[in-house]
Amino acid sequence: MKEHIRWTGECLEILDQTQLPTETIYMKLSTPEETAEAIYNLRIRGAPAIGIAAAYGVFLGIKNLASPTASELELELNRASELLLRTRPTARNLSWALERMKMCFRNHAEEDVLIIKNVLENEAIRIHEEDRDCCQRIGEFGAHLIKDGDTILTHCNAGSLATGGIGTALGVIYTAHDQGKRVRVIVTETRPLLQGARLTTYELKEAGIEVTLICDTMVGRVMRKGWVDLCLVGADRIAANGDTVNKIGTYQVALLAQYHHIPFYVAAPLSSLDLSLEDGSSIPIEERPEEEIVSGLGRRIAPQDIKIYNPSFDITPAELISAIITEKGIIVPPYSLRSSLTSGGN
Amino acid sequence: MKEHIRWTGECLEILDQTQLPTETIYMKLSTPEETAEAIYNLRIRGAPAIGIAAAYGVFLGIKNLASPTASELELELNRASELLLRTRPTARNLSWALERMKMCFRNHAEEDVLIIKNVLENEAIRIHEEDRDCCQRIGEFGAHLIKDGDTILTHCNAGSLATGGIGTALGVIYTAHDQGKRVRVIVTETRPLLQGARLTTYELKEAGIEVTLICDTMVGRVMRKGWVDLCLVGADRIAANGDTVNKIGTYQVALLAQYHHIPFYVAAPLSSLDLSLEDGSSIPIEERPEEEIVSGLGRRIAPQDIKIYNPSFDITPAELISAIITEKGIIVPPYSLRSSLTSGGN
Repeated sequence: MKEHIRWTGECLEILDQTQLPTETIYMKLSTPEETAEAIYNLRIRGAPAIGIAAAYGVFLGIKNLASPTASELELELNRASELLLRTRPTARNLSWALERMKMCFRNHAEEDVLIIKNVLENEAIRIHEEDRDCCQRIGEFGAHLIKDGDTILTHCNAGSLATGGIGTALGVIYTAHDQGKRVRVIVTETRPLLQGARLTTYELKEAGIEVTLICDTMVGRVMRKGWVDLCLVGADRIAANGDTVNKIGTYQVALLAQYHHIPFYVAAPLSSLDLSLEDGSSIPIEERPEEEIVSGLGRRIAPQDIKIYNPSFDITPAELISAIITEKGIIVPPYSLRSSLTSGGN
Repeated sequence: MKEHIRWTGECLEILDQTQLPTETIYMKLSTPEETAEAIYNLRIRGAPAIGIAAAYGVFLGIKNLASPTASELELELNRASELLLRTRPTARNLSWALERMKMCFRNHAEEDVLIIKNVLENEAIRIHEEDRDCCQRIGEFGAHLIKDGDTILTHCNAGSLATGGIGTALGVIYTAHDQGKRVRVIVTETRPLLQGARLTTYELKEAGIEVTLICDTMVGRVMRKGWVDLCLVGADRIAANGDTVNKIGTYQVALLAQYHHIPFYVAAPLSSLDLSLEDGSSIPIEERPEEEIVSGLGRRIAPQDIKIYNPSFDITPAELISAIITEKGIIVPPYSLRSSLTSGGN
């Protein structure tokens, strides 16, 4: 599996996902501003990946201070955090990673500035490495849900491009594939930004897994034809009751799966959980520029001066989710994630 | 309402819909071959409109014969019909219009060749004019289902661009609007060929009706938010039990509507009915080239060498359809269209 996020010690190198699948271009991010730009413009995306990038991003701000005092360092930490937090409101992992960086600072605030810099760098690296491990464990737990010969439908991209490791939803598929199970994947193109068509097909093809691309209009048809054994998606934020926010279109995939009696699984690290929220209703749903829909594909596809609605995410109610696959185990309904996690999954 | 299909007496002029919404280009069709090309490549599309174009198309073949015998004329009628019939397999109106042209020939086969030419031209014009009238009547019947203030979700394009008149689904909306009802329309972009984004928004904007464009991934979300009062779509073919084949994605819109307790209406002329079929299972579903999905929008959106599935239509089972609006009246479930039509609708 290729590394799409690399910390060089000097800067963060990322694969610019906006250029995929036609161009494979790595770019260097050397400041919080460059990192924020890359996150906002989806050069790097996927809830776990933006958490990792944000952690390195705040460290880049701190690293670039020549001989700071501890309070200058704290000011920069807060400034860079604010900047990065504003890029994308929905994914839990972004604020989670920034909170970890701040907590790390607070735990070492009395120490020498050079030591603080060092522990913050190590904390970002740890967030990155932990996510890699999470993906492995999610993959191992989730692979139990996949049978030899299964066809899996996935939406958007919850793969190595979205994480620091093999991915969440796709990590499960890679693990099953590595175990020798024959799997096929149906990938929705995922409008407007086509993460399914551009990224998920690219990853799966590289991994040697059979992939069939469909438009988002074709989900009902392939399910009706009996071609889908299970659905598997990632998550941007999960509330305590299991309500899951993920890429726009996930909700209707889950509804269509329920109607066709197809299991619908969410795979996500615990860092995507937001146990402060009873349910999904108060999770902020990012709305992005109209241009993503009307001119993101090369030529303008709609008239000027019409209204356009472009929410990036939707909420899948817990009752539509057959199980949530985490690095601690598989959680099944009824979800009560606060207690499940105290007991380490079930 | 602009005329998008014009018979000049010498040729058929059509608006090239592949160039919308950015370019408004009319093209002249002077042979069956040119007509077939225009239908196959969706320069003209929509079940009623391709029926009309096919009728003129066969006449163009006959018109171009210099001094034919009756049997040369029949040979050309059959040749041109075969050619046109092969362009698109799903819409009932195409074969229906060609059968009408052949029936017209048979009814006049013993007459003078000049007379036969004349009656065939008039038959094509009659098919065109009847469709215009059908749209008006569908609009009038259907407008009873629309209340002042309603927001209507439509998929693909079943408007003036798809018919010889004001449209079927959109004809209902135009009629309600003309009656002074305030209506808003949510339009799905309708991947892969974006008839919603390119054509329906264009028509509705021209008509001064408020339109909001969404991606096909957003249908569940707008329904969940309570923004949709009813759904209204066209049809390419309807079986005797009410099963309806329409643009890919219609089936899942209907399922999502049912789940959210939103009425789902089909508007279509009787020429879209295929009473020879008990149900929708044997309606041929056209599959079109992969390029429509992966490179139809300007730049390539997926890797090379992956599988792509591109069905143009799907089947919406009758039980998901709240009513079928025809030029003879509104038909409600349980559908038994053979008897409904004998009694002229109900």
